[in-house]
Amino acid sequence: MSEWHLARGYLYAGVHSGLRPDPQRLDLALVVSDRPATAAGVFTQNRVCAAPVRVCRERVPRTDARGIVICSGNANACTGSQGLRDAYRMTECAAQAIGCRPEQMLVCSTGVIGRLLPMAIIEPGIAAAAAALSADVSSLERVARAILTTDTCIKVSTRRLNDDIALTGFAKGAAMIGPDLATMLAFVLTDAAILADDLARIAREAAASTFNCVSVEGHTSTNDTFLLLANGSGPPLAGPALQRFRETTIAVCAELARAIAADAEGASHLIAIEVEGAQTDADAQRIAKAIADSALCKTAIFGADPNWGRFVSAAGYAGVDFAEDDLSLWLGDFLLYDQGTPAPFDAAAVSAWIKQHREITLRLCLRLGAGRCRFYTSDLTYDYVRLNAEYTT
Amino acid sequence: MSEWHLARGYLYAGVHSGLRPDPQRLDLALVVSDRPATAAGVFTQNRVCAAPVRVCRERVPRTDARGIVICSGNANACTGSQGLRDAYRMTECAAQAIGCRPEQMLVCSTGVIGRLLPMAIIEPGIAAAAAALSADVSSLERVARAILTTDTCIKVSTRRLNDDIALTGFAKGAAMIGPDLATMLAFVLTDAAILADDLARIAREAAASTFNCVSVEGHTSTNDTFLLLANGSGPPLAGPALQRFRETTIAVCAELARAIAADAEGASHLIAIEVEGAQTDADAQRIAKAIADSALCKTAIFGADPNWGRFVSAAGYAGVDFAEDDLSLWLGDFLLYDQGTPAPFDAAAVSAWIKQHREITLRLCLRLGAGRCRFYTSDLTYDYVRLNAEYTT
Repeated sequence: MSEWHLARGYLYAGVHSGLRPDPQRLDLALVVSDRPATAAGVFTQNRVCAAPVRVCRERVPRTDARGIVICSGNANACTGSQGLRDAYRMTECAAQAIGCRPEQMLVCSTGVIGRLLPMAIIEPGIAAAAAALSADVSSLERVARAILTTDTCIKVSTRRLNDDIALTGFAKGAAMIGPDLATMLAFVLTDAAILADDLARIAREAAASTFNCVSVEGHTSTNDTFLLLANGSGPPLAGPALQRFRETTIAVCAELARAIAADAEGASHLIAIEVEGAQTDADAQRIAKAIADSALCKTAIFGADPNWGRFVSAAGYAGVDFAEDDLSLWLGDFLLYDQGTPAPFDAAAVSAWIKQHREITLRLCLRLGAGRCRFYTSDLTYDYVRLNAEYTT
Repeated sequence: MSEWHLARGYLYAGVHSGLRPDPQRLDLALVVSDRPATAAGVFTQNRVCAAPVRVCRERVPRTDARGIVICSGNANACTGSQGLRDAYRMTECAAQAIGCRPEQMLVCSTGVIGRLLPMAIIEPGIAAAAAALSADVSSLERVARAILTTDTCIKVSTRRLNDDIALTGFAKGAAMIGPDLATMLAFVLTDAAILADDLARIAREAAASTFNCVSVEGHTSTNDTFLLLANGSGPPLAGPALQRFRETTIAVCAELARAIAADAEGASHLIAIEVEGAQTDADAQRIAKAIADSALCKTAIFGADPNWGRFVSAAGYAGVDFAEDDLSLWLGDFLLYDQGTPAPFDAAAVSAWIKQHREITLRLCLRLGAGRCRFYTSDLTYDYVRLNAEYTT
């Protein structure tokens, strides 16, 4: 953790409130900016959206955000008006503990859908978290851990833009991952000064090319939230400096998105799908997503089977106009399909290559334009079925 | 098979050509009308479509069709210009053998994508099939068997409209099933006299509410074809008689579509998703399809887990405008979600009910209109993963 670059002015706490039965398991996180921060958010496009998402939608963009309270183990989704009251109450408790107005506090939840939050546990948990706030890396690590559900590891990405500006990103997600504007929970905190409009635009653009380009099974969650906080003072970034901030934000988000796909439930392979030469980036993304969401494509990789017909046929139903002659397909360095015609290849060698690599790249090249996309997904394994058939998650 | 109602004037043959290595396995089918038939077709909307689909698209609608030649074990898809020549050649061989022009003959293929057809095997196979043509039920049964791939059983549905008119339907399909205008291979033959325009309309309408309402994993095939042949002479059906013919055609197609979902690869449950109260039928279908294509929903059923949040959240990302309060959800007779609020239910009883029933009904009721849809899918099991990871299909 020593190499983490932490944005200044943020405090962290991750605690065990009791929401999860296992006393070893952290389940409640609090992040606080010691000064008002500009905040932007991108949220699930699911019609069924969780109570905390509604509260955040009401409250961002804003220029005086003071923090985020997050619980894991319960999504507070499909919980009706009581769920909404509970989400507001979480922000009230956090605001009271740190000394700000409730509307300056944001809230996220992740976990099982359809159960009311046990507020008798949550409220003292928030107070305990407020008492534990600290700026050190181990507290950030506890926050990154407290927001996890079926994830097997924390997902943190930090970058330093220059001596004065750093970005601290963390996220969670391992299933119910299907991109639609934003997916999963992800947070990026910076000590840069950014105008609210710039921050909102950068949040949208970063989500579009990162969190929206990852899928585990294409199931868009009710709780997807990406929050971007900037607490810097002084003149806001502009021109090339703002552009560099934007690029760094995208790099942090891309690293978090990739970490989510790499930790996909039960996965044995991280699959990077690169589509290039499409008419538009959106077309490239449609093709990548059709492949990423296909159980036939995902089981082929799990089976180390270079059954390229599955990839080509998935591209064909993505809703993008192309002719077979326009399309070529590589798995790693192996050319399998060459401008509409099967390419000769050594199936045993390709299969062995798939087995030897946990991360593999599938590349589809069209010749229609400059549209491109890099999309991450995972394979579909026995363990995915086991995890999702045997447990309520 | 004694209860099968066969349309008059059709001859059938199913043979082993050698396309499949197992000598016990039928792999080539020929269906012939002894007189010119009106023909309509509905085909895959996949941009990557197989050579036989291109040939059929050129040739239907028409009023002088004489038959269909079908091979299984090789899809003749993604095979370039040679594949197209091979598909034409199949119709030439069949036409020569029965004495008609090549363009009167239609062609279908199903199986692995991306391999050239072994024409040295196919051509004598077609001649052998032509020599074996017969009108009896055992020949129809051999045709229904010869078109199968990973299916575990034949799919036949026949109906008698009156003393003079019967419909003979058969289909194949167990995976790579994702509805888009037509899915899988399906054939309905009738001895009614139907105007070409009426037949084309009925084919479209029947596919929309049956084959387009079934999904195994949502992967639209390159070879999907539904052909409807009517070889009756005399005045074409009109008015109420035509309407009855339409309804009977839909009933036959519905039975075939349901049989495909019931035989889905590795499935332990047939899931009927009934959506009602949507603004339009199309909205209802979008919601049903989002659930049917969700690995999280499908593994929940496999695990006998009444984890209704997965169904509600899938409905939420279907692209249909509704509020949570508009939605209620039943699994069988168990109410799980009641107008936006979790309903109290006995989870153990629901789980036991799922385990006890191979066919289960999931019902979503909205209160926005009269739109409805009945959609069939299957659960996602270890066996689905095994079948699609371990074998090239």
